[in-house]
Amino acid sequence: MRYVVFERSGAVGVGRLSEDAAAVRVLELTAQEAARGVLALIDRQLAGLPLRETGEELATASLRPLPAVPHPIRNLFCVGKNYFDHAEEFSKSGFDSSAAAGSVPKAPIVFSKLPECVVPHGAGIPVDPTVSEAIDYEAELAVVIGRGGRGIAKADALSHVWGYTIVNDVTARDLQGRHSQWLIGKSQDGFCPMAPVATTAEAFDLEDAMIRCWINGELRQEAAMKQLIFDVPTLIETISQGITLRPGDVIATGTPAGVGIGFDPPRYLKAGDRVRIEVDGIGELENPVVAYDAAGAGARAAEAVA
Amino acid sequence: MRYVVFERSGAVGVGRLSEDAAAVRVLELTAQEAARGVLALIDRQLAGLPLRETGEELATASLRPLPAVPHPIRNLFCVGKNYFDHAEEFSKSGFDSSAAAGSVPKAPIVFSKLPECVVPHGAGIPVDPTVSEAIDYEAELAVVIGRGGRGIAKADALSHVWGYTIVNDVTARDLQGRHSQWLIGKSQDGFCPMAPVATTAEAFDLEDAMIRCWINGELRQEAAMKQLIFDVPTLIETISQGITLRPGDVIATGTPAGVGIGFDPPRYLKAGDRVRIEVDGIGELENPVVAYDAAGAGARAAEAVA
Repeated sequence: MRYVVFERSGAVGVGRLSEDAAAVRVLELTAQEAARGVLALIDRQLAGLPLRETGEELATASLRPLPAVPHPIRNLFCVGKNYFDHAEEFSKSGFDSSAAAGSVPKAPIVFSKLPECVVPHGAGIPVDPTVSEAIDYEAELAVVIGRGGRGIAKADALSHVWGYTIVNDVTARDLQGRHSQWLIGKSQDGFCPMAPVATTAEAFDLEDAMIRCWINGELRQEAAMKQLIFDVPTLIETISQGITLRPGDVIATGTPAGVGIGFDPPRYLKAGDRVRIEVDGIGELENPVVAYDAAGAGARAAEAVA
Repeated sequence: MRYVVFERSGAVGVGRLSEDAAAVRVLELTAQEAARGVLALIDRQLAGLPLRETGEELATASLRPLPAVPHPIRNLFCVGKNYFDHAEEFSKSGFDSSAAAGSVPKAPIVFSKLPECVVPHGAGIPVDPTVSEAIDYEAELAVVIGRGGRGIAKADALSHVWGYTIVNDVTARDLQGRHSQWLIGKSQDGFCPMAPVATTAEAFDLEDAMIRCWINGELRQEAAMKQLIFDVPTLIETISQGITLRPGDVIATGTPAGVGIGFDPPRYLKAGDRVRIEVDGIGELENPVVAYDAAGAGARAAEAVA
């Protein structure tokens, strides 16, 4: 099953997406529930409450997309250097404060992004040259946790996953390098576009689904989910070993090779670019890159979740 | 002015602390407001609402302390290697993934801790040998942001500070090193004890106030606030350059020399230890170290904010 989160006449809605993605059957949720996006479905599932449709069917094209999780419950967990080719390109880039440990990590590299970075499909990714001159894209599969827990074993891990969505782990490479720890370089306002669609776990192919990313129509990143160095069960086992995972937690799983920093010279994002990401079985996430001042994108990002 | 957050008969309260800290004058807040701890005072200040006392005065000793910010709005911002002597001891420890860049950082090292790590004065710091065998203490001054903003200049930064409290940035050194980025090593359940008292900005001496930490009565850490490598205005300017800071954000400013990893051999925390921190003009934060299973401390930490 695929669910989509949208805005219509100023109100947030959540609906089931039709097989061909052209139509949305609206779910019966309170305004407070709908504001949580797909987390409302997790809440209802955990509380044993039914999920009903209102009977209304809308054309997907008529709706303004919102992030599948409009406001994550806390910083998103994110994983670095989690595809072999990308680990190599990043280690060589000069911005990797962990490069001394080798290009392929021996354990998952886990950092976070602020929940307020999350912006919808279509929102401008703000480029502010007074802050960074090295803004890069990272197409990623994101896990949405359903049932929480601590000490989750790898064999049980997938039963804790509610579903999957797509994020762009936008990164200011200069800040990522300068501050050694990655929070600042990863958490600039507007730096986490998220797809409006989330696919439930049983409907997603965690082996063969492909993730692809295009810049201005040029294919830059392409990988299958099975190419992750640390797979989703390993990530959940690692994080939850001593940290209680909670329903609604989001884990961005890392990006394949082909980011801007992997080119010589690097090909950073600039105003006017378009970043398009697709994941088989989920859908698409496309965002223009915009000048910070012109768009007030950062300010919008901050307001959107106030 | 000093405020204290407490529990009494199952309800959360916030009060003004008397000069000698012996008495608390209870503030008139709704239950929903009080649950936010001192953030309720910031909300009221920003909304231009008055802050009234109920007239009730309680003995501080009769109250169960809660964290000044029982549930931070998102992960706490934290700063690493921010005192010269500590930067040196940590770089030599073998656990510092940023050591290659030199012991003294050229820019603030900013990472985060999950909001659910926050536990009160008196709560057990859980030691779980199946997760970590190198758990360490870090006494720190924490800034509570009042007025939010992006692009805050150093000269304006202190006008964005509502006040200060104390945290113990408990750290699993082995996990901190293993995962290169510090989120996992810093965010284990129960790893952020926070004092019940917060002191408003105008009443705190950001130059000469001393921070001290004792383990089982032995003085281990001692420094004045002016010894920070990157002072509070610099931290606020750095973080807010491209990230919108929000009312209620917490910034832990880093720890002085004298942590367990600074000794040879290292002196990690073990069940039965007591960690006591004092900051002049704020108060105290004392927590026992407990075996994870015996205390269910992690589970309690997770429930406390559910």
